[in-house]
Amino acid sequence: MRRRAMAGPEIERLIQLLSKLPGLGPRSARRAALALVKRKADLMEPLAKALAEAGRAIKSCSVCRNLDSQDPCSICADPERDTRALCIVEDVGDLWAMERAGVFSGRYHVLGGTLSALDGRGPEALGLDLLLNRLEAPGIEEVILALNATVEGQATAHYIADRLHGHRVGLTRLAHGMPMGGELGYLDDGTLGAAFRARRKV
Amino acid sequence: MRRRAMAGPEIERLIQLLSKLPGLGPRSARRAALALVKRKADLMEPLAKALAEAGRAIKSCSVCRNLDSQDPCSICADPERDTRALCIVEDVGDLWAMERAGVFSGRYHVLGGTLSALDGRGPEALGLDLLLNRLEAPGIEEVILALNATVEGQATAHYIADRLHGHRVGLTRLAHGMPMGGELGYLDDGTLGAAFRARRKV
Repeated sequence: MRRRAMAGPEIERLIQLLSKLPGLGPRSARRAALALVKRKADLMEPLAKALAEAGRAIKSCSVCRNLDSQDPCSICADPERDTRALCIVEDVGDLWAMERAGVFSGRYHVLGGTLSALDGRGPEALGLDLLLNRLEAPGIEEVILALNATVEGQATAHYIADRLHGHRVGLTRLAHGMPMGGELGYLDDGTLGAAFRARRKV
Repeated sequence: MRRRAMAGPEIERLIQLLSKLPGLGPRSARRAALALVKRKADLMEPLAKALAEAGRAIKSCSVCRNLDSQDPCSICADPERDTRALCIVEDVGDLWAMERAGVFSGRYHVLGGTLSALDGRGPEALGLDLLLNRLEAPGIEEVILALNATVEGQATAHYIADRLHGHRVGLTRLAHGMPMGGELGYLDDGTLGAAFRARRKV
């Protein structure tokens, strides 16, 4: 049997766009589209509106390069956050992960990627001038490098550490070690070695 | 540490709505929102537009009660579909599943649910008058009951079979049996019994 579109072009287009979201394959995009079609008033129309509004509002924070609907972003504008600590992350997703963990109450600098000769991303693409300017002003006492434990992340962390060398702020990085719930037998050698070297007194 | 919103209200609202889609929990809704925020021009804005357009366009087909952006729906309007066969399904998701399977080239009637005394859904809610009217016109030779193999689905199938009793159309239902790839040891007794009773010569 010849394959036909089973719904009009508007619905097919919706399925196609939904399947681009992370975590939604073609099958679950179809299921999501079905839910939207069946719940037009209480889900499809509000979501259309929310997306349009967020799309209009999203901007890059001029202080920390976070993406938010306000500039300065919700975090930079929050008077209750600690202005003495600054956490450097690769991208907005990492900032969100830090916020979910709920361990950090300072502010951020979002690099927007790592250094990459291949992709032509040099220091200027990471907004390091913006970062260094912020560090000129008094107040920041600690800069935390919360970059991914990948080759690119660590190379970028090294570069930033070099640039901040001699600066009066304390520079720290996230600890390496066993993930919570991790089992030795399943751990890669690099992580196990790092956890061993960083062992602590009990 | 006190929990703060980590992004402006527009993004939080987006996450909240996305988490209502089937298959997206709070975590994956957050991930989807992040992808949208980072891909504003090529994903967020097109999706907002697609949803708004689909929302404006979606209507119930006046012939078969399918949901589509046109009336009659893409299937009822397709001149290449077989007008002799009519398949009765519970809802639009079941119609989509039939279309995905690609085994049926006729048209549909969408009940929009099953009979349910508890939920106050009687025969009129299933559009049976619409169905019987279609059967009055000449041309339809077979009606296929493709209802779920649940108590409600089967009770509804029985009711429809009663209503069509004495009508000149042939009435069939989907076969019960082992699912493809199924293993006997994992099969429920009802399915195994049905598969045994419906055994075929090889």
